[in-house]
Amino acid sequence: MRSSGLAPPGVYDPETRTPRPEVPMATHGADLAAHYQTVRDASTALADPLSPEDCTAQSMPDASPTKWHLAHVSWFFETFVLEPGLPGYAVFDPSYRFLFNSYYNTVGDQYARPERGLVTRPGIDEVRDYRRHVDAAMARLLSGAVPPERCAVIELGLHHEQQHQELMITDLKHLFSKNPLCPVYRERVGGPGDPVPELEWQGVAGGLHEIGHAGPDFAFDNEGPRHKVHLEDFELAQRLVTNAEYQEFVDDGGYAEPEHWLSDGWSVVQERGWQGPSSWLEDGEVQTLAGRETRDPNAPVTHLSAYEADAFARWAGARLPTEAEWEVVAATRPVKGNFVETQRFHPRALEDEGDDGVLQLFGDVWEWTSSAYSPYPGYHPPDGALGEYNGKFMANQLVLRGGSCATPNAHIRPTYRNFFYPDARWQFSGLRLARDA
Amino acid sequence: MRSSGLAPPGVYDPETRTPRPEVPMATHGADLAAHYQTVRDASTALADPLSPEDCTAQSMPDASPTKWHLAHVSWFFETFVLEPGLPGYAVFDPSYRFLFNSYYNTVGDQYARPERGLVTRPGIDEVRDYRRHVDAAMARLLSGAVPPERCAVIELGLHHEQQHQELMITDLKHLFSKNPLCPVYRERVGGPGDPVPELEWQGVAGGLHEIGHAGPDFAFDNEGPRHKVHLEDFELAQRLVTNAEYQEFVDDGGYAEPEHWLSDGWSVVQERGWQGPSSWLEDGEVQTLAGRETRDPNAPVTHLSAYEADAFARWAGARLPTEAEWEVVAATRPVKGNFVETQRFHPRALEDEGDDGVLQLFGDVWEWTSSAYSPYPGYHPPDGALGEYNGKFMANQLVLRGGSCATPNAHIRPTYRNFFYPDARWQFSGLRLARDA
Amino acid sequence: MRSSGLAPPGVYDPETRTPRPEVPMATHGADLAAHYQTVRDASTALADPLSPEDCTAQSMPDASPTKWHLAHVSWFFETFVLEPGLPGYAVFDPSYRFLFNSYYNTVGDQYARPERGLVTRPGIDEVRDYRRHVDAAMARLLSGAVPPERCAVIELGLHHEQQHQELMITDLKHLFSKNPLCPVYRERVGGPGDPVPELEWQGVAGGLHEIGHAGPDFAFDNEGPRHKVHLEDFELAQRLVTNAEYQEFVDDGGYAEPEHWLSDGWSVVQERGWQGPSSWLEDGEVQTLAGRETRDPNAPVTHLSAYEADAFARWAGARLPTEAEWEVVAATRPVKGNFVETQRFHPRALEDEGDDGVLQLFGDVWEWTSSAYSPYPGYHPPDGALGEYNGKFMANQLVLRGGSCATPNAHIRPTYRNFFYPDARWQFSGLRLARDA
Amino acid sequence: MRSSGLAPPGVYDPETRTPRPEVPMATHGADLAAHYQTVRDASTALADPLSPEDCTAQSMPDASPTKWHLAHVSWFFETFVLEPGLPGYAVFDPSYRFLFNSYYNTVGDQYARPERGLVTRPGIDEVRDYRRHVDAAMARLLSGAVPPERCAVIELGLHHEQQHQELMITDLKHLFSKNPLCPVYRERVGGPGDPVPELEWQGVAGGLHEIGHAGPDFAFDNEGPRHKVHLEDFELAQRLVTNAEYQEFVDDGGYAEPEHWLSDGWSVVQERGWQGPSSWLEDGEVQTLAGRETRDPNAPVTHLSAYEADAFARWAGARLPTEAEWEVVAATRPVKGNFVETQRFHPRALEDEGDDGVLQLFGDVWEWTSSAYSPYPGYHPPDGALGEYNGKFMANQLVLRGGSCATPNAHIRPTYRNFFYPDARWQFSGLRLARDA
Repeated sequence: MRSSGLAPPGVYDPETRTPRPEVPMATHGADLAAHYQTVRDASTALADPLSPEDCTAQSMPDASPTKWHLAHVSWFFETFVLEPGLPGYAVFDPSYRFLFNSYYNTVGDQYARPERGLVTRPGIDEVRDYRRHVDAAMARLLSGAVPPERCAVIELGLHHEQQHQELMITDLKHLFSKNPLCPVYRERVGGPGDPVPELEWQGVAGGLHEIGHAGPDFAFDNEGPRHKVHLEDFELAQRLVTNAEYQEFVDDGGYAEPEHWLSDGWSVVQERGWQGPSSWLEDGEVQTLAGRETRDPNAPVTHLSAYEADAFARWAGARLPTEAEWEVVAATRPVKGNFVETQRFHPRALEDEGDDGVLQLFGDVWEWTSSAYSPYPGYHPPDGALGEYNGKFMANQLVLRGGSCATPNAHIRPTYRNFFYPDARWQFSGLRLARDA
Repeated sequence: MRSSGLAPPGVYDPETRTPRPEVPMATHGADLAAHYQTVRDASTALADPLSPEDCTAQSMPDASPTKWHLAHVSWFFETFVLEPGLPGYAVFDPSYRFLFNSYYNTVGDQYARPERGLVTRPGIDEVRDYRRHVDAAMARLLSGAVPPERCAVIELGLHHEQQHQELMITDLKHLFSKNPLCPVYRERVGGPGDPVPELEWQGVAGGLHEIGHAGPDFAFDNEGPRHKVHLEDFELAQRLVTNAEYQEFVDDGGYAEPEHWLSDGWSVVQERGWQGPSSWLEDGEVQTLAGRETRDPNAPVTHLSAYEADAFARWAGARLPTEAEWEVVAATRPVKGNFVETQRFHPRALEDEGDDGVLQLFGDVWEWTSSAYSPYPGYHPPDGALGEYNGKFMANQLVLRGGSCATPNAHIRPTYRNFFYPDARWQFSGLRLARDA
Repeated sequence: MRSSGLAPPGVYDPETRTPRPEVPMATHGADLAAHYQTVRDASTALADPLSPEDCTAQSMPDASPTKWHLAHVSWFFETFVLEPGLPGYAVFDPSYRFLFNSYYNTVGDQYARPERGLVTRPGIDEVRDYRRHVDAAMARLLSGAVPPERCAVIELGLHHEQQHQELMITDLKHLFSKNPLCPVYRERVGGPGDPVPELEWQGVAGGLHEIGHAGPDFAFDNEGPRHKVHLEDFELAQRLVTNAEYQEFVDDGGYAEPEHWLSDGWSVVQERGWQGPSSWLEDGEVQTLAGRETRDPNAPVTHLSAYEADAFARWAGARLPTEAEWEVVAATRPVKGNFVETQRFHPRALEDEGDDGVLQLFGDVWEWTSSAYSPYPGYHPPDGALGEYNGKFMANQLVLRGGSCATPNAHIRPTYRNFFYPDARWQFSGLRLARDA
Repeated sequence: MRSSGLAPPGVYDPETRTPRPEVPMATHGADLAAHYQTVRDASTALADPLSPEDCTAQSMPDASPTKWHLAHVSWFFETFVLEPGLPGYAVFDPSYRFLFNSYYNTVGDQYARPERGLVTRPGIDEVRDYRRHVDAAMARLLSGAVPPERCAVIELGLHHEQQHQELMITDLKHLFSKNPLCPVYRERVGGPGDPVPELEWQGVAGGLHEIGHAGPDFAFDNEGPRHKVHLEDFELAQRLVTNAEYQEFVDDGGYAEPEHWLSDGWSVVQERGWQGPSSWLEDGEVQTLAGRETRDPNAPVTHLSAYEADAFARWAGARLPTEAEWEVVAATRPVKGNFVETQRFHPRALEDEGDDGVLQLFGDVWEWTSSAYSPYPGYHPPDGALGEYNGKFMANQLVLRGGSCATPNAHIRPTYRNFFYPDARWQFSGLRLARDA
């Protein structure tokens, strides 16, 4: 891995950051009704290729059945919008309050998370009925005047639903990884990519920067407040790490030598017998949602834990970026890339579109950062049950940035903070190298 | 619990044991073909009330999905009958050899047992196709001459399938126990029973008896050889222990006092927080395959572990019978009772049919004995893969006798040895008291 | 392994069984006082070569620290003899009632068994003071008239203490197995043995036999009642299985092929990565209480679990004996062998003493039988706390017979039933082959 | 908990930070030899009140036996100083390289950490011999000229030894917590304190600050590089949270209500059944190294996990400080407090010494911060085995600041970063409240 000519420090002046693209999220009136239904339909469409059996199974406590996702996001609207906001609303089934609550203690107890796959009834058909029941009620509610606070909860509910759309895909991929037949979710769209350019380092000037969300557009509470951070000069790789590069690490004994690894990471490698990314199969093949395929050497490596990303970076003489470093660069770039809308459901090789600078920041794979998922200065969770949405998870997790091939395009932004435990690797997660200037 | 007038010792003279009823199991020619299809159809009929979701989930490593049972029993015929015996037989899907092998190491590796619920494809429809494929081939095979050794394997396969029919029911009941909605498998057939007579002790003369299978009828290898055992005089209760009696034990602090329990049993009670039989719900209700019901005080208590059965017996000043004690009595009684054919799927109170002696020996609930599941003198497992059927499990398990409300009537006999670990309680398992004369 | 000329069936006529040798256990008066002190002194002598550190550590939940053993056996006399029987007896330390109770729920709660190694205070010196305190009080008690029931409890306490003497040795050996320095407890007494004769089968006539204890001599409650058993004709090997024979099994892939193993045993082999007996080290060496030594091919193999013993027997075309088979033969033989009094603390090769018949039945290694540890017909545990001594463990364990190189000679008899879980292998446990005639 | 009159923001001008007090750590020549022996003698003195038994036991994988600590710190000098630096040095025992290596993979394999309590030999006397052997060799080495790089490693070794001095105390306290007798390590020095002043908030001006170590004095690698951070205005409590305040939280249902807790913290509370700080006993008592005592309401609460500290802060309407916030204040304060030299081994109530501003920053209890233990910008671990000292632990842990009653005074400084997993609570760990201005 060589560094080709450093870009001059300062090429990314935070003052020149371009405004992030208009997020097509309506915030009031009929627009909201239409947007609501668009997002909701996207969820059910994701389940179209699935059998009732596919929709039911849960492959590990961290993942949930498709059916559960489809019900839970409806429960969200029922609980936080319809019950308080639509006079005369008739709850679809009182037992769903318990069955499809995820983790809102304020709302009440929850069915045991690791056993979600055991609730075979209601089945997928009843869950679709439930969705229709909620959608009809939402249409009634949205046909009238909706106070702004309620609009805000609906908007939150739609972003929440988009998060679960991504989880439906990743949880399904994990489920299918347990099946030796390597089932096909959707036939492959697109083929392997062209060779990618050598890794180049792009320098960024340090100093006082600002990160975090501000302004009227939607963002999750954990993205703010916008605040100053002081950064040293640093450099980012212009593209993601590829399968071919990661293969070099594996071939060099990366999984056999403790010196590359964080101590906790090395323990996990040994306990679980890891020898490569979780989706890599024998013979240069890889599990994808289009079934078993030959690994594309130019595609970004994915299904890495943070431990693996960190070990690779250390082996390569580099490091992971902090989330602030990532964001000050990403804020200057357009939000485009290989999102769920491409229907590839897999990262693809960098395509030469004549762009310059730091590329592939959005889509393909979530990029592990070295930053712990912590509250920004001045952060306070909202009052009430929705205060449980983000704040209580600010421990033991790391921030990932940029979205993946399973993320809806409209769902992502430069300030977006995703978070997972460092040993998690069932998401489409990869890495970009950084280093001190 | 009082003992009403002892029956005179010797009332059961082993010499007068009645022949066990004709088992309607054909052993050759067209009869075998018809019998084959009858047993096979009974399996699929059991799945009729189930959704694809119900057929897929696995609620614990010891239980298997309905779909898996339906496939595995077909795999048995494919592997042990069709592949070796039907020239030109085309295997339905080579991957099934791995997916639906249960524990036959001689045949090859097996898919991880605790993850059977994660194989969502093939779905229930493909499994039904698989069954039809196997049935068609079996019909071809059975239309010609079949050598006796092959007939014996087919007969074994049908008894094997009946065992899995019972497991389909008990595994489903365990799965439904995880669902707070208490789903209904089949609407209740029959209502609560009448008060049962007080417990009476029936004396049996000791001396040299014979137990175990001999003769031309089918029996599993573990039921033989027939051999002599010496018994002391003993007494058996004339009926099974009821819910009302077990409630007395619970009310008397049975689950809070270690002195009633085997040491291992007491550990389990504390670790798992047991406070009563696994199917007992709050407010005197009980989980059944017809949903949530009021507990019938006169029905036999069920879903007991051997530890609970033993503790109850100790508390009652009695003990569990040995399997030899049970068998020498059962051999004199007709094989009739509340089997799967009643479609109750639940034990029922003893019905007064004017019978005398030891009743309820067959059906309702499997009766825990105090006998370790060990080889009879002179036992040798068969050669080859089928030698793995029974012999290798002869450790750490206890023998249960008599069949249950989930057992096919034709499947049971006085010599039949069922076996489970002493902490298992998802079967229809209960107890009958015994004591020294 | 070949069978040389079968001894004629019937060579062991149960009617001719010799009386078991006089057990030198006093049962009254001054004899009892002397005997008491002899047994007690033997316990403390076992700890002489040990440092305070050696006496403190606990290497697994099943094993206990030397210090704990020395205190617990004193607690037994304090609790069951002195408190009820010596007016004015002053308890040494009230906290010991909790600290040194093993498992007597009737007496009260117990300190957590897996954490016995964490009680560093009292130290070994205080425990010795405790012993002296108890011994002085016992001397006072024994100086007067002692009612027979109390004598019986004292006698039980002394046999109890001898059991713990054996456990002190085996628990220490397990502890030392964790130390890569392979510490020396006592320098080796005696060297390797001479080649042993080929395995020969000794036939025994079946029929009605009697086993179990009867008569005035001491025996544990679980050894009775004496009762009839019916046996088929069978054969026993004339000696124990040797290291050289077991090595053949290992070399033949014994630990790699599931067909030799009980299903539960095979699971244990794989989960724990067993590849040979627990004391075998690399390079043909073995851990002993005299440190690291070259393995004696002629010595009996030891530190086997029941699973390994059973797998070996199956591989050798034989089986384990039942406890009844073992006892009817052992009852005809003198109780002599390599007991703790030889100070070898290790099994030794069979020595040619001109004997004929079945040899090595006593001492060297406990012999696994295929018999579950169950109550004999008519068995009832005693009332009160001492009823917890044996009865509550009659589940999930197997019977071993004959004593070992760590057993006091006076402690063993033909009817003696030792019991361990089938996966236990820190005892001096080995096997003798049996087969059907 | 009320806030009395806010101190004016800006009272802590980072420009006026006082120099940290002279650390009495010699760095060359005879001074180093004397200092070496002083630190070494302090270690052995800590073990003086302990029996060989006390020195041997290990109460959990995270803690180590006293004996192991005493040996391991000697291994450090032997491995990193004497072997490379003293010609002709004879290793004391080659097996110690394996036995007493903690986690330096570069040096070789290590004895299993959770089983350190099982190495009863060498005993404490041999370990003392080992120390004398190393000390004699170190004296020889230090009698000559020592190159600065070697001096640096020796200095590191002495700070390393001081870290283990603290762990000897905390690990011993955890061990004694397992003993129902509540053993006494040292008799109580000092009594309960006077009532402490109400909590007051001290404001600190935000802006660009610098934190981290720079300069010639010793610091661990993880304390640098010194770098700029941007802080918002904030406030710190003038003293630590007391037992009385924490009792209010407990009494208010703090351990029963999920809304105060981080999600991971709430899981831990439920799984482990936490109901208060780990050293709190029933009846208002507390386990101390002077035995069981009445809890001092005015003393700082201790033995808190980060989860508990965070939950308390949230309940109190405040938060934990970041490590940068803590350091910019601490850098202005003298390093004095209740350190190990007071021989109290327990936190004490704030004493009125006429001081103003933020007090109790050093000693008594380590203060949990909300900062993940991460590398400072530009941090690189040293090359070689000593690079494993700190860097590889920078995952999943949180930073604690200020030292405790078990820390040597000379060991602490404002830049010192201690780190533990958020569920750890066997250290003397407590908290100080912070909040946004």
